[in-house]
Amino acid sequence: MSTATASTVADTCAAAKTAARTLASMPSSTKDAALEAIAQELLSREEEILQANAEDMRAGREAGLSEALLDRLMLDRQRLGGIAAALRDVAALHDPVGEVVEGGRLANGLSVRKVRVPLGVVAVVYEARPNVTIDATALCLKSGNAIVLRGSSTASSSNAVLAAIASQAAQRAGLPAGCIGLLGGGREELAELATQTETVDLIIPRGGEGLKKALSEVATVPVIYAASGNCHVYVDRGAELQMARAIVLNAKVQRPGVCNAAETLLVDEAVAERYLPPIAEDLLAAGVSLHVDEAGRALAGSLAERMAPASEEDWATEYLEMTMAVRVVDGVQEAIEHISRYGSGHSEAIVTGDLAAARAFQVGVDAACVYVNASTRFTDGGELGMGAEIGNSTQKLHARGPIGLRELCAVKYLVEGDGHIRG
Amino acid sequence: MSTATASTVADTCAAAKTAARTLASMPSSTKDAALEAIAQELLSREEEILQANAEDMRAGREAGLSEALLDRLMLDRQRLGGIAAALRDVAALHDPVGEVVEGGRLANGLSVRKVRVPLGVVAVVYEARPNVTIDATALCLKSGNAIVLRGSSTASSSNAVLAAIASQAAQRAGLPAGCIGLLGGGREELAELATQTETVDLIIPRGGEGLKKALSEVATVPVIYAASGNCHVYVDRGAELQMARAIVLNAKVQRPGVCNAAETLLVDEAVAERYLPPIAEDLLAAGVSLHVDEAGRALAGSLAERMAPASEEDWATEYLEMTMAVRVVDGVQEAIEHISRYGSGHSEAIVTGDLAAARAFQVGVDAACVYVNASTRFTDGGELGMGAEIGNSTQKLHARGPIGLRELCAVKYLVEGDGHIRG
Repeated sequence: MSTATASTVADTCAAAKTAARTLASMPSSTKDAALEAIAQELLSREEEILQANAEDMRAGREAGLSEALLDRLMLDRQRLGGIAAALRDVAALHDPVGEVVEGGRLANGLSVRKVRVPLGVVAVVYEARPNVTIDATALCLKSGNAIVLRGSSTASSSNAVLAAIASQAAQRAGLPAGCIGLLGGGREELAELATQTETVDLIIPRGGEGLKKALSEVATVPVIYAASGNCHVYVDRGAELQMARAIVLNAKVQRPGVCNAAETLLVDEAVAERYLPPIAEDLLAAGVSLHVDEAGRALAGSLAERMAPASEEDWATEYLEMTMAVRVVDGVQEAIEHISRYGSGHSEAIVTGDLAAARAFQVGVDAACVYVNASTRFTDGGELGMGAEIGNSTQKLHARGPIGLRELCAVKYLVEGDGHIRG
Repeated sequence: MSTATASTVADTCAAAKTAARTLASMPSSTKDAALEAIAQELLSREEEILQANAEDMRAGREAGLSEALLDRLMLDRQRLGGIAAALRDVAALHDPVGEVVEGGRLANGLSVRKVRVPLGVVAVVYEARPNVTIDATALCLKSGNAIVLRGSSTASSSNAVLAAIASQAAQRAGLPAGCIGLLGGGREELAELATQTETVDLIIPRGGEGLKKALSEVATVPVIYAASGNCHVYVDRGAELQMARAIVLNAKVQRPGVCNAAETLLVDEAVAERYLPPIAEDLLAAGVSLHVDEAGRALAGSLAERMAPASEEDWATEYLEMTMAVRVVDGVQEAIEHISRYGSGHSEAIVTGDLAAARAFQVGVDAACVYVNASTRFTDGGELGMGAEIGNSTQKLHARGPIGLRELCAVKYLVEGDGHIRG
């Protein structure tokens, strides 16, 4: 384990690169056995892990961390069990390495296969939660990548023990030394990591806008930024209104602090009079503050008193809390226009029974995930059948939407001939 | 056409973004008809194009451009015919937009489809050749993208006429205004283009290291850099030596100035004595200068006098001319090691009849295209069955190898339910 020898960032990344070359050709069975070995080792060394975590918790309390942060930092027997279970879930997934994406035989007899291969070295930069140390390691190793971890300094004792255990178990199971590297949590380490273009193939930051800004200013290594989500639900005139109430309520309140939660409700004027009062009741009863445009408040009757006027700023805001903006639009086209202007390209939903409206929305909305008659909350690698995810991308290149095992791969063309030369 | 109104870079890109939203949902038939209309218009306005090109040629001669550059700049009736034919070839390709990449129904009944969608606005930055104006336009429009062209100022008259003709023909065929934008050829325009993150989704530079450096210093828009290619052919002990002679000769001399030409020949020591003298004869007879390691020269007999010693620098050099480095290695593993150390991840070939060696090479070599018993010269979108290419990528994210129509697309998840909410 790299921190044990106080090696530099460059050394850790170089060791990961060397390990990656071996990892790339390892069979799934070896990688899966390593994940199982890590799971067992974590469970059998529970005391050691919880002790290290208690140190971080003590230091965190002394440093005055908020209760929310302390909760993220905390490990207990149950959470450790969850981490071990997640390792086994990843081990059970299909190995993406070697999958033939496209292929065929050309007219001249050359055989061409485009196959998935590991990216090489993936660095994951994350904040307090120590479980990410293991979750991210599982996804990277399963996809044949070496991983360089750069966690938060508030979790340094927990991360050091977790990474050491994972590294030892992985090596005993036959994975190469260096395949799990851990860096210190300082800004200097981050800046040095961000420029290791010779050895690091991708950096995935899991954190807020501060981390994004810090990285984007210095990174020369490719970065896939996790998403901010200004997500909308549009209730069309063709909607079954009971369904639309359930979907909007779910999209807003089931877990308001995450990127796939809905922030703005767009209502077709043709159903606004019937739909707005009951959904407003639902949302207000659930504790949601409503910021509503003039047309919406005019239809809300006595409920209007409990609504705030919506401003331009509301359309552009990702609240990440129990607040929702509401706007009346004149149909699906205006909904698409609104989303095009204010959306962040994350998750957008239409509720409708009208096929033409659904198709127009699917084609016209430019986002990672476009939903018809389902909640935006399904944007998640686990929910969408990808098994697990290491983050969620709203960028268009390489990975858009959940970053799962396949998205941690590149491709390679394998071309076979019988002495073919170009004429 | 944007230059006609002397609009700014930002205006041109914004107009392209607006056009891109319409283009994204246009059926293949409309896009194909537009490419055909451009082809016809180019042929019918030949005089006008050749006159503009003659102006560029005159200015180029006065400015003292080299004959090689002037040749790239030059258009004549035959070359225009080639440009029109290329448009029709692209029109005949399969439209990537809407292709379902993956899909299925989840356990909870949600239908998930991952489909290809256009990236949006693609900017292409290129040097002298005016044909790129049309070739790049064809690939971008076919894949549903708007294009912003930034050609060389040496070709400004040619590019202006070509882009104006293409833009007029495309609009008459029903494509939206703004879908083809042309910028001036100055450094300021390039720097401004490189930061249009709100409107430009991707920049593809087609040019040398100077352009790459200029862009990488300023770009905040995603860029896919075209490749440099330090490509190898490894002749294994299991090779049929006649085949190996033909492949090495082809890979080196058929067109030495391009990125998929071979630069270094690696020879297995087990066959070096039999293989090296005849291939050296072939290469020397073809006019290739040979830079050979000590072991190789020791086996070359009297030919050694016509060889230069190879140094570390040779292994790392992309000659792009009639020079080849030669090294004797002790087998496929050492060949893989050498390629891993010096290769640029472009195109690598093994010649062998031995299946284990072929498989080891395919898995162990980390490059965009890995060949067994075929010349590296096939790395090209047209040759590999992708129809055409806009460049060749050695980066791992998004596009690796030829950048064809599919690589000019992003993906989008379409999720359909019956009122699904997350529990």
